[in-house]
Amino acid sequence: MAEEQMGRITVVGIGPGGRSHLTPKALAAIEACDVVIGYKSYTDNITDLIAGKRVVISGMRREIERAVEAVEAASLGDDVVVVSSGDPGIYGMAGLVLEVVNEKGMNETIEVEMVPGVTALSAAAAALGAPLMHDFCSISLSDLLTSWELILKRLKAAAEADFVIALYNPRSQGRPGHLRAALDVIAETREGTTPVGVVRNASRDDQTAVVTTLDEIEDASVDMLTLVLVGNSQTKIIGGRIVTPRGYEVRL
Amino acid sequence: MAEEQMGRITVVGIGPGGRSHLTPKALAAIEACDVVIGYKSYTDNITDLIAGKRVVISGMRREIERAVEAVEAASLGDDVVVVSSGDPGIYGMAGLVLEVVNEKGMNETIEVEMVPGVTALSAAAAALGAPLMHDFCSISLSDLLTSWELILKRLKAAAEADFVIALYNPRSQGRPGHLRAALDVIAETREGTTPVGVVRNASRDDQTAVVTTLDEIEDASVDMLTLVLVGNSQTKIIGGRIVTPRGYEVRL
Repeated sequence: MAEEQMGRITVVGIGPGGRSHLTPKALAAIEACDVVIGYKSYTDNITDLIAGKRVVISGMRREIERAVEAVEAASLGDDVVVVSSGDPGIYGMAGLVLEVVNEKGMNETIEVEMVPGVTALSAAAAALGAPLMHDFCSISLSDLLTSWELILKRLKAAAEADFVIALYNPRSQGRPGHLRAALDVIAETREGTTPVGVVRNASRDDQTAVVTTLDEIEDASVDMLTLVLVGNSQTKIIGGRIVTPRGYEVRL
Repeated sequence: MAEEQMGRITVVGIGPGGRSHLTPKALAAIEACDVVIGYKSYTDNITDLIAGKRVVISGMRREIERAVEAVEAASLGDDVVVVSSGDPGIYGMAGLVLEVVNEKGMNETIEVEMVPGVTALSAAAAALGAPLMHDFCSISLSDLLTSWELILKRLKAAAEADFVIALYNPRSQGRPGHLRAALDVIAETREGTTPVGVVRNASRDDQTAVVTTLDEIEDASVDMLTLVLVGNSQTKIIGGRIVTPRGYEVRL
């Protein structure tokens, strides 16, 4: 029994927004599976693909439940897809699925594969121009699972070492002041004129992308569906877009 | 004349490896264009798609030439696609195209759009398990366009603030010692048992993914086609794969 392959879980990134970023590999995995597990707003984009399959949808903060559900279905022999928006490997479900498989002692009996997707980060950058052309950090401002002290330490380190900084989960009703505190830490070592991009619902029909600066960003325009990108010391605004130069001498 | 839209450039990410990560949006842009400009090994994956179009291929370190070629073709009214592997917004061609358009004074007359792709980073992470589940930094070890001093400063900051660290361009014939120097800096503040992933040719047919540690990584196995991912202090190896916990209490 322990040697038998009992089922498989594919953790699939469907990209940001609608279907235009769904890769052939992700599509094939969804089409081939028996069971689809996901957060509601993610599965809304693929309703036609999952018709006729067993679909398990749950809400926010139900990540462990979804991972457990996937492992239980796979242990019964089902071919399971866990759907993440963007890329499941970046603040997504990939790690939790591996942790639950391990906790249940099923590393040898359930096959787990990750199918990467276009990240929200890439989509937000594309909407702004080219802010991520040089070394960057990604930092989540959610302190649900990480101490605020560690988040502040990372912000300070990233700012001092002149990384472009992407802020995930920048602001929510439960913690309206985190974004301001984060930007204040960054502003200790970066000019107020530093370009900042604010992208909400990247790649969706209702996407908004605002180019502003560290001094002028309006905190209230930012919520959980928003990514905030702060340029490095070399980042500039060109023709209304944010560009971080790679360092080439562009003299024509 | 200045108000007239003369042409367009779409900077398209085709994802890592073959065609399995090419998004519908990227495919449509390539199919619709007149001219395709790219680095040789990137266009090899899409030869059937670009048959019959004008194709301009150039070698490594010809990035400015390719951007200039794109702008010149677009200024004649052509619909131009510049192809990047992975995501064009991460160490890709997106920024350079905007810089050249700006230098030529064509911000108002050439429309530039970015189509994001699956990054090499996401593909490498998927091959290793789930190393990027928490805050991470991406650092290129190439000092062609960035001072080695700044690279070292970023490595030190990233290590001290306990980021997962992705190393792009980790090692080449011209700078065989950069990777070792980088890992030594990271090892000043991170345990030798820290999981490290080494992925070569992510998502290609000849992909290799090695799970090792900071103490045991073999520098000689790393080249320019490789990404190296160094875990944070919480990263562990589970069932042969690298997992950075998000912080959920997984007790079943």
